[in-house]
Amino acid sequence: MKERYEESFLEGRNSVLEAFRAGKTIDRLYVLAGCKDGPVQSILREAKKGDTIVRFVAKERLDQMSGSGRHQGVIAKTAAYEYAQVEDLLAEAKKKGEDPFLFLLDGIEDPHNLGAILRTANQLGAHGVIIPKNRAVGLTGTVAKTSAGAINYTPVAKVTNLVQTIQDLKKQGLWFVCAAMDGEVMYKTNLTGPLGIVIGSEGSGVSRLVRENCDFCAAIPMKGQIDSLNASVAMGVLGYEAFRQRLEKHTGNVET
Amino acid sequence: MKERYEESFLEGRNSVLEAFRAGKTIDRLYVLAGCKDGPVQSILREAKKGDTIVRFVAKERLDQMSGSGRHQGVIAKTAAYEYAQVEDLLAEAKKKGEDPFLFLLDGIEDPHNLGAILRTANQLGAHGVIIPKNRAVGLTGTVAKTSAGAINYTPVAKVTNLVQTIQDLKKQGLWFVCAAMDGEVMYKTNLTGPLGIVIGSEGSGVSRLVRENCDFCAAIPMKGQIDSLNASVAMGVLGYEAFRQRLEKHTGNVET
Repeated sequence: MKERYEESFLEGRNSVLEAFRAGKTIDRLYVLAGCKDGPVQSILREAKKGDTIVRFVAKERLDQMSGSGRHQGVIAKTAAYEYAQVEDLLAEAKKKGEDPFLFLLDGIEDPHNLGAILRTANQLGAHGVIIPKNRAVGLTGTVAKTSAGAINYTPVAKVTNLVQTIQDLKKQGLWFVCAAMDGEVMYKTNLTGPLGIVIGSEGSGVSRLVRENCDFCAAIPMKGQIDSLNASVAMGVLGYEAFRQRLEKHTGNVET
Repeated sequence: MKERYEESFLEGRNSVLEAFRAGKTIDRLYVLAGCKDGPVQSILREAKKGDTIVRFVAKERLDQMSGSGRHQGVIAKTAAYEYAQVEDLLAEAKKKGEDPFLFLLDGIEDPHNLGAILRTANQLGAHGVIIPKNRAVGLTGTVAKTSAGAINYTPVAKVTNLVQTIQDLKKQGLWFVCAAMDGEVMYKTNLTGPLGIVIGSEGSGVSRLVRENCDFCAAIPMKGQIDSLNASVAMGVLGYEAFRQRLEKHTGNVET
């Protein structure tokens, strides 16, 4: 199988700066310690906009990492992930002869959570995951690692506007449910059929506009004294409730 | 409510060394950079045995952190958690008039996983969590933080021998189920009644001896191409299946 996720290194000021400006995911940036001229400052400014980890290192370290020997004081570790299109996700469902079963993540910021969610989506047999371009973690090296390989099997689409995507997919017959504490208990919510499950961010849950565009809200029952569940655990619990309902609908029982 | 978890600082060579030797959980150790005499070496040796993070810092930093001004080049950040006894967990169930519902963690090493598990155990209304003394993360600062407060509500007991604890609890009427991929699908496993759910470690699952002492094994259905789920997600999925079954048994339906 073709691997969707690959790591590689970029060297030299121009190639690194261009990569940033082209919106590539750069996990780590290695900069020669003490180097503060104009081009390096521009690169550092770009690095600050995303979640790139910056390390200032000695010349020997850069020389050692360098393949070409022409790093000019800058080496970037890029995560090259081939994102899918939303249509690819639907095509995947059609190919399998199944109702579409997607997850939409409204602003997950912790790469460990995103990795764990991809892992669970894969095990659920979901047809893909949709993430927003802004205010959310992309497919970085940490995500790839914590996904335990799922990143190579379960397609991820990145969209500019989650609300627009939901509206488009509704026209194609999908229903949307969002995870919300004040929703109806998940056991009473119909999670079968062509479905997108929306999981909110770690801090603030599903945003207002996204929620208003969902068809219904499902709540995980909680008996505890604290606020909520970890986002990847909540996704797993709600996802597996959908799995159970879909299995039951399909086979008439859940004893398969 | 009395908080079960508290952070505090210890200063001075003797008090830090004593704390290590008494088996206290020390999250972070700050040592004066360049300081390499005998007593400091002993402290560093003790720190290496556990998962203490060691930082070598400047004198100014230590002076700033110090309350007494008498740090002698060593300050330790301790996590003071009041562990519960296994009997306390059973007493909690009895007080609520419920069948005991416990989680046993067989070697969870990632503090983020342990924190997320405590959070989920709290939301499930579980009566407590049991962890082993060795080869597992204890209740550190990271665990406290990722538990989102659950550490103050859901009691955690630390035991020397998990197998012995299972055998003791069996005599008191508990059943034990372990999460295992080759077990019977969880929907067919009876997860009601006085129950302990055993979750294995991130790397190697439930150990052989622990598994042999469980009454049955339950599998989370997995349709993916990869190996397993994240440990805290698996605990949430299996835990909520038990929750659903217990609710159904209690009310005759799950529509509460």
